[in-house]
Amino acid sequence: MSEKKPSSNLMNDIINLCKRRGFVFQSSDIYGGYNGFFDYGPLGVELKNNIKQAWWKDMVHRRDDIVGLDSTIIHHPMTWKASGHVDNFTDPLVDCKESKMRYRADQLFFAPVIVAGETIGYVSVLEDEGMQAQAEEMALDMKRKLAKQGELAPIVLKDYTEAKPEEYALIPSPATGKPGSLTPPRAFNMMFQTYVGALRDETAVAYLRPETAQGIFINFKNIVDTGRVKVPFGIAQTGKAFRNEINPRNFIFRSREFEQMEIEYFISPDADWQALHKGWIDYCMDWFDGIGIPKSRLSLYDHPKEKLAHYSKGTTDIMFEFPFGVQELQGVAARGDYDLTQHQTVSGKSMEYFDEAAKKKYVPHVIEPSVGVDRIFLAVLSAAYCEEEIEGEKRLVLKLHPRLAPYKAAVFPLVKNKPELVERAEALYKRLKRRWNVFYDAAGAIGRRYRRQDEIGTPFGITVDFDTIEKDGKVTLRDRDTLQQIRLTEDEVVAYLSEKIEG
Amino acid sequence: MSEKKPSSNLMNDIINLCKRRGFVFQSSDIYGGYNGFFDYGPLGVELKNNIKQAWWKDMVHRRDDIVGLDSTIIHHPMTWKASGHVDNFTDPLVDCKESKMRYRADQLFFAPVIVAGETIGYVSVLEDEGMQAQAEEMALDMKRKLAKQGELAPIVLKDYTEAKPEEYALIPSPATGKPGSLTPPRAFNMMFQTYVGALRDETAVAYLRPETAQGIFINFKNIVDTGRVKVPFGIAQTGKAFRNEINPRNFIFRSREFEQMEIEYFISPDADWQALHKGWIDYCMDWFDGIGIPKSRLSLYDHPKEKLAHYSKGTTDIMFEFPFGVQELQGVAARGDYDLTQHQTVSGKSMEYFDEAAKKKYVPHVIEPSVGVDRIFLAVLSAAYCEEEIEGEKRLVLKLHPRLAPYKAAVFPLVKNKPELVERAEALYKRLKRRWNVFYDAAGAIGRRYRRQDEIGTPFGITVDFDTIEKDGKVTLRDRDTLQQIRLTEDEVVAYLSEKIEG
Repeated sequence: MSEKKPSSNLMNDIINLCKRRGFVFQSSDIYGGYNGFFDYGPLGVELKNNIKQAWWKDMVHRRDDIVGLDSTIIHHPMTWKASGHVDNFTDPLVDCKESKMRYRADQLFFAPVIVAGETIGYVSVLEDEGMQAQAEEMALDMKRKLAKQGELAPIVLKDYTEAKPEEYALIPSPATGKPGSLTPPRAFNMMFQTYVGALRDETAVAYLRPETAQGIFINFKNIVDTGRVKVPFGIAQTGKAFRNEINPRNFIFRSREFEQMEIEYFISPDADWQALHKGWIDYCMDWFDGIGIPKSRLSLYDHPKEKLAHYSKGTTDIMFEFPFGVQELQGVAARGDYDLTQHQTVSGKSMEYFDEAAKKKYVPHVIEPSVGVDRIFLAVLSAAYCEEEIEGEKRLVLKLHPRLAPYKAAVFPLVKNKPELVERAEALYKRLKRRWNVFYDAAGAIGRRYRRQDEIGTPFGITVDFDTIEKDGKVTLRDRDTLQQIRLTEDEVVAYLSEKIEG
Repeated sequence: MSEKKPSSNLMNDIINLCKRRGFVFQSSDIYGGYNGFFDYGPLGVELKNNIKQAWWKDMVHRRDDIVGLDSTIIHHPMTWKASGHVDNFTDPLVDCKESKMRYRADQLFFAPVIVAGETIGYVSVLEDEGMQAQAEEMALDMKRKLAKQGELAPIVLKDYTEAKPEEYALIPSPATGKPGSLTPPRAFNMMFQTYVGALRDETAVAYLRPETAQGIFINFKNIVDTGRVKVPFGIAQTGKAFRNEINPRNFIFRSREFEQMEIEYFISPDADWQALHKGWIDYCMDWFDGIGIPKSRLSLYDHPKEKLAHYSKGTTDIMFEFPFGVQELQGVAARGDYDLTQHQTVSGKSMEYFDEAAKKKYVPHVIEPSVGVDRIFLAVLSAAYCEEEIEGEKRLVLKLHPRLAPYKAAVFPLVKNKPELVERAEALYKRLKRRWNVFYDAAGAIGRRYRRQDEIGTPFGITVDFDTIEKDGKVTLRDRDTLQQIRLTEDEVVAYLSEKIEG
């Protein structure tokens, strides 16, 4: 078997596989699609559910110190005033008045083109791995067209938020290549807005949550009052969140409707927050590793102190080597007591907690591990996607962890025209299906059936053959990754799957 | 043990229990609540997840003919044009210009007050079990005040949508009791509206889905093209839906943000749709019965032919005896080929399916079993809520099916000051917790600990006592409903729970 050989265009391969096998479709495909929205098909919904359920099991059920919550997507709008989102949850937006295109100013880069000390014009490019080279080529082109002699100074790209007011009119629009049509950047609030009730005025404005976290903070008091929780403890929540992104991109990595899994872990103000913060980072890294996102492809990025919000004690991102670059998979933030204090101030309700052991009252501080389901989905696929050559034949295989695989096993009768064989296979299929999501396939050559399952990540193929019915009653279990085949009784198959799947 | 004795005010008892034990909180409680929105607390989210997972297992994983889907909440807005929601998804709204109150016209009832053949005025009441009596009292009051002599004719209530134009000015507002301030009813679209992208104009309007069903129809083609599905087959989806209800009411029964579980079951136009429709009704009734909503409290309501939409072949509601009356739990509709045909017309994409067995092409017809998670949640609690007297002591118990119970078992050391006992109990707890959501409680008298679990529906209490560590290694398993106690080894406990919980 050859080594894992990622395709040169892994991202496209993944997108194609997702569409071809029903993992992910563009939303509203029949209406030409809808930018920034994605639907999960029959296999995708299973993978996504398995990610969510594995997280819930490991974060909530298997721990003693975390309870769950499911708050609404639409809250009382004061929530977002208190949290700062109404005022500050913005991206810098720049319009091209001519083309009507819109850009995030911090993703639009520009540079003066300086020849022999004289600025002969500006170039602009959109954020991209190749943008430096692209800008240099455009500068050379400009120098040639304007027939300027002398040395071209190095092109130093800055983003549009750093442009000086007098430069706005000089920087060309990336859409038209001509200067004069870009507006100054303006703050664009990314919360989707709606109206609740029959009125459509200021009093009825509401927002779709841009994060699940605030739903946790506003339920802190209810949970402390009704649950039997003691600091340190966490509240976990999974659910949809919405951000009106100016430029959704990279497939499901940055979309307008996505799903989060967040924990607010409440700690004493006297606790060693750095140790707890580090503890959560390690815990999350281990968790990723355990579900098939190997540590070797993860790295850490500490947000520089000067870029943190005033209340933030520190934020570390767990970065994953996505096909399009190293990007944030999970953020782990130490947010102090900022959020609870804000809600206490705005609501007038005390967020203090009485610590019986320490015999004191305080507003707890918080560590916030926050991750997107869709990003895990993409990371898992990126890590699992494999093209291999086996005995001269290519195969595409998704090496998904058995906990996450959409189908846990596929059951095959070796041939489909032998009734005893088929009956036996169907009976085993039905037995397994009571407990797990299992596939049955009787059509085509057995090798082809294996390969169909390989590319959707089914970890085990179980074949009922002539020996099963004529000799030992055992079936063949083939391991997707090692290709090893073992003979097991049906009871042994159940025990084997149980161990592999339920960990 | 006494018989089940439902409280005279069951609904309030359930709401109180939900708040007190952390099943359901009013959304945004610290901000004074938010009408029509509810948050599920630590126990509620478990019950809700268990309902969803039981449904998914039984409808998708355990069947051969249904696949899943998870489409976005925000679709391309053409979806809602094609489906008819933009034009027709309305409720009749009436405003009181004086009080600024808003009513659903079909929930506002009125009647002329006729004394000795003369109409002396009008009364109005809001829909309620006692509205007839209330209206009669108001009429008598009016007769007395106006000092009219003669016989009061019977009060015949009609809803405000049936009022004649000349009556609008005569019918008193329920808010003020005075006529003249109610507007004529107008169609109010219940879809929440928002804007996608940076513009806020007609081209950017989008809607929060008012049902999950349309997400299935617009993915029909993708799923037929990529899955290995053959008519008859179904597509199942669970997820949030939003309706801007004029009057949210009855707790989580009718809220503005709720969760649906819908199946579109595609059938041949030549199939016996009546038999299939009936089959789905029976299947759903059995399913409800199996998760603890007894058939004895379910009934069927066939929508009268004349009230059906023109395309509808028939709709039957499965009704449940809620504490506030018999109301719809699930709808099972036979919708013909209306939805697929509409999307085919508006999108220009063929929705035809080639039936290999019948060697013909057609647009499939559909049976739609559609149910709300929140309604099942409330039905399950209503059926499970029980106040009993045991040996002269009252107990409140939630007789939840083990599949649905938030905690599957609670582990107790008989006393907490005996280290070997505590260690043994903790070890068993940890073992069970790997697999299920299990609670550990060492505090208080054992009877009190049992009762705390009874009222949140934990089906099994497992006590480690002196015999466990000194004699047989067995523990006591107490059944919540029968109160029977049996002695089991720890391995037997695992097998017992596995059988009871996983069915």
